[in-house]
Amino acid sequence: MRIDIITCLPRLLDSFFAHSILKRAQDANHAQVHVHDLRDYSTNKQRQVDDYAFGGGAGMVLMIEPIAKCIRQLQAERTYDEVIYMTPDGERYEQKMANRLSMTENLIILCGHYKGVDERLREHFITKEISIGDYVLSGGELAACVVADSIIRLIPGVLNDETSALTDSFQDNLLAPPVYTRPAEFEGWKVPDILLSGHEAKISDWRFQQSLERTRTRRPDLLD
Amino acid sequence: MRIDIITCLPRLLDSFFAHSILKRAQDANHAQVHVHDLRDYSTNKQRQVDDYAFGGGAGMVLMIEPIAKCIRQLQAERTYDEVIYMTPDGERYEQKMANRLSMTENLIILCGHYKGVDERLREHFITKEISIGDYVLSGGELAACVVADSIIRLIPGVLNDETSALTDSFQDNLLAPPVYTRPAEFEGWKVPDILLSGHEAKISDWRFQQSLERTRTRRPDLLD
Repeated sequence: MRIDIITCLPRLLDSFFAHSILKRAQDANHAQVHVHDLRDYSTNKQRQVDDYAFGGGAGMVLMIEPIAKCIRQLQAERTYDEVIYMTPDGERYEQKMANRLSMTENLIILCGHYKGVDERLREHFITKEISIGDYVLSGGELAACVVADSIIRLIPGVLNDETSALTDSFQDNLLAPPVYTRPAEFEGWKVPDILLSGHEAKISDWRFQQSLERTRTRRPDLLD
Repeated sequence: MRIDIITCLPRLLDSFFAHSILKRAQDANHAQVHVHDLRDYSTNKQRQVDDYAFGGGAGMVLMIEPIAKCIRQLQAERTYDEVIYMTPDGERYEQKMANRLSMTENLIILCGHYKGVDERLREHFITKEISIGDYVLSGGELAACVVADSIIRLIPGVLNDETSALTDSFQDNLLAPPVYTRPAEFEGWKVPDILLSGHEAKISDWRFQQSLERTRTRRPDLLD
């Protein structure tokens, strides 16, 4: 799978894709992430990519020309499953969307910044608008990382143990059960006896009950 | 405001806090972000911070001892408003919570990784559990950045123009209206005439109507 991220602040993303599972996934050729600096597609000498909003008001707007040029250049090289725009008014991102996107081949992710991108881009180039939650960030870069991370970790072979992702919260509409590791006792706080019992079936049952109970208490909406 | 982030992968966060408004906010002393490498608080020579889960199963668990040591050391230096743990089963993060947190003085944010942290930490040290959305990431690092970014940009003086954050989506339960910038025409696609009219009152009214319409279409739940 290949993800092309278009941003006016490429340096922001440097360390994220250079570490953790995203680095391993790229090294093992499970995924490629390419970050494109919008300024390289500017149509003027000042490498300008944003300008004041028509009609006035605070905040800059990313211009249509450099972004259109970048998207078209990428689309001339290969076919993309989606051209995604990260925006707080997009479709709410959830695990099911991550699952679906992890099965695509090529994705473009456009990061908004400042007040956002020229609306004409959204009308004519974008095929999917995604919001990672009801809050405002200074740009779409972090949101693009969230989408890339949640997708890439689902590609078979990326996590060390393939069962690891299947036991995550949300994959079965249940929150994950509590987890414990050594020491078995810390300042008087003990690990539940059952987990030290060695009874695989009982442990599995306990975990399921804990998942269910935690979901009932914290997120009853997931059980509907 | 000061934010202390505790993580087993500090390098992941390097470029994020070194760029964009977070860099400017720190340079201007509006906010300080300190990233703590959990391995510096390990209690053994191998600098170990994770171990297998009691009861078996895939995925590693972050140990209680290094994290407890780090949190206690920070708490000995100053009083913290919240000790936050980023986890998919936490309270859903929304703009209102960002607004509230932006008015605090000192925050600790603990990043989970792998299968999460030892449950006893959550019971005895954590005061607030936050989820940035219903999806699973490979760690809490990106989620911590999301929280830090959304909070810090609200601190007065951080954005160039203070009105900029007030016109964001969600601050008034309305999505932001469409924005446009130069050129006024691109390949036949024109900017709405009203925005070029210079009539401030009419433009303001048009934007409000667009916000309302967009919210009705995309997020009617915000209007309830």
